[in-house]
Amino acid sequence: MSVTVVGSIAFDSVKTPFGERERMLGGSATHFSLAASFFSDVRVVGPVGDDFGPDEFGVLEGRGVDTSDIERIEGGKTFFWQGHYDFDVNVAHTDDTQLNVFADFQPKLSDQSKESDVLFLANIQPDLQLEVRRQCEAAKFVALDSMNLWIETAADSLRAVISEVDCVLINDAEIRQLTNQSNLLKAARAVMALGPRAVVAKRGEYGAALFTEGGFFAIPGYPLEDIADPTGAGDSFAGGFIGYLDMHGPDEVDDAMLRQAMAYGSVMASFNVESFGTERVRGLTKDEISERFAAFRGISQFEDAPVEVRA
Amino acid sequence: MSVTVVGSIAFDSVKTPFGERERMLGGSATHFSLAASFFSDVRVVGPVGDDFGPDEFGVLEGRGVDTSDIERIEGGKTFFWQGHYDFDVNVAHTDDTQLNVFADFQPKLSDQSKESDVLFLANIQPDLQLEVRRQCEAAKFVALDSMNLWIETAADSLRAVISEVDCVLINDAEIRQLTNQSNLLKAARAVMALGPRAVVAKRGEYGAALFTEGGFFAIPGYPLEDIADPTGAGDSFAGGFIGYLDMHGPDEVDDAMLRQAMAYGSVMASFNVESFGTERVRGLTKDEISERFAAFRGISQFEDAPVEVRA
Repeated sequence: MSVTVVGSIAFDSVKTPFGERERMLGGSATHFSLAASFFSDVRVVGPVGDDFGPDEFGVLEGRGVDTSDIERIEGGKTFFWQGHYDFDVNVAHTDDTQLNVFADFQPKLSDQSKESDVLFLANIQPDLQLEVRRQCEAAKFVALDSMNLWIETAADSLRAVISEVDCVLINDAEIRQLTNQSNLLKAARAVMALGPRAVVAKRGEYGAALFTEGGFFAIPGYPLEDIADPTGAGDSFAGGFIGYLDMHGPDEVDDAMLRQAMAYGSVMASFNVESFGTERVRGLTKDEISERFAAFRGISQFEDAPVEVRA
Repeated sequence: MSVTVVGSIAFDSVKTPFGERERMLGGSATHFSLAASFFSDVRVVGPVGDDFGPDEFGVLEGRGVDTSDIERIEGGKTFFWQGHYDFDVNVAHTDDTQLNVFADFQPKLSDQSKESDVLFLANIQPDLQLEVRRQCEAAKFVALDSMNLWIETAADSLRAVISEVDCVLINDAEIRQLTNQSNLLKAARAVMALGPRAVVAKRGEYGAALFTEGGFFAIPGYPLEDIADPTGAGDSFAGGFIGYLDMHGPDEVDDAMLRQAMAYGSVMASFNVESFGTERVRGLTKDEISERFAAFRGISQFEDAPVEVRA
């Protein structure tokens, strides 16, 4: 039972209406790994520079994440992202992106990473995702994230890798953009027609929706008084979602399990945004996670109410 | 057991990517009445012109709606709205509004309408809403709808009438606008601080959310392949929501009943948008309504999944 994730490991400088942080630990693979670590063994693959030190490794290793496939490039600099959010925290404004060691990244997975049952291809260039996908032939469940940048600049590569995964997790606007289809239900079906059996539409404050052959499911966002920093929320969602599926058996993924995984993904995303960067997720307790899961059931369930409709 | 509604009765000309209709029966009170008529006795209050004839009355009366408080102004013309929707059906573009008989409307309720247990103040000028509210002192549950126009032009009047109702149903953006508070949870609490015990945030394709002292609840939008015409969806939601509360006892409204009412509201809204104007809702059957309610449970429920989290 283990999950391999490939994606960015980064330093992020973020400013929101609630504060700011300089060069804190971030990146899609980082947020994913920390969230997934509450459910499963996680192996993280990605490049860092020699500015990535014991403190940063320590955050991942403190959660039991296997960092032996993190490639540390001597003389290189770690991927850097700078951005800010205004009061509409659904919209990230990018102020600076420095690919650094990511510019020449060629993923080389150890045998152990190749043999994981579950693979998550975080949001990186789709040709790299496909390269990793092909190194992990044994994987029983493979999911990917992507973004508008790759839809606009590498659509054919993105479609190629989508055709080789079980599940796609992207924003609902990106599902529409990828398929050129304004109706989300039809757009999700068009993605499934490429190969995946499940499509997860991330919807920001509105939560997330799941499309499968068996039907549709939606879970609301958690009502929070303060959203300190939304960076990484989608990756934490993916970590909880994928970690739960790995924990419960990637051979046996059905709609009921996918729905529960959606709930654990939502739990982790809701914690992610409560503080900056990885601050909240990395220190979570069992009870906090269990209570938030119960809270998600509490905000979305209603009793049957058969009525004598007057028709 | 009856519901009184005051609001617009209109002719609508609507164009969407799926077709168009000229001068079809519309208006907030009309959509509300038809949806509520599946659950309760409905009395509709509002003015029409002498262009409003037996065909239009027949649609309402065909669903058992009591039209005796519809004031027909000889020589007057019925309220007219013309608008269109592009592919983003969440946004209505108004091309023409003719208030006509609504310009001088002074609501005069019959004794029977004044004695309803439940009152719905559809989206009209808030001073008119307050006037009607005060004519219905016996009402046990009162709800209102409003819109950005009144927030911008009559905020004090709107706050005054909000302070005298039990429930406010408006768009989530309008809840933020009304309270000048970007966080929806805080914004809803600010509305409740004015008096109401429940706030319903309408969220278009994302469904609707309910805020009460007891907590938060959200129900997703129904996944539809084709949305023919969203006009009146919010009013049909309110009709199902309020009709269900009246049917089950406005003395006993609690959070569980409000959640079920949210589901029936969502059912009626989802039908509303499947065809133009009132075409779909007015012809619904018992089975269609029951099946759609069950479908809403189907798309939003998930099983408990306690896990041994590794924290």
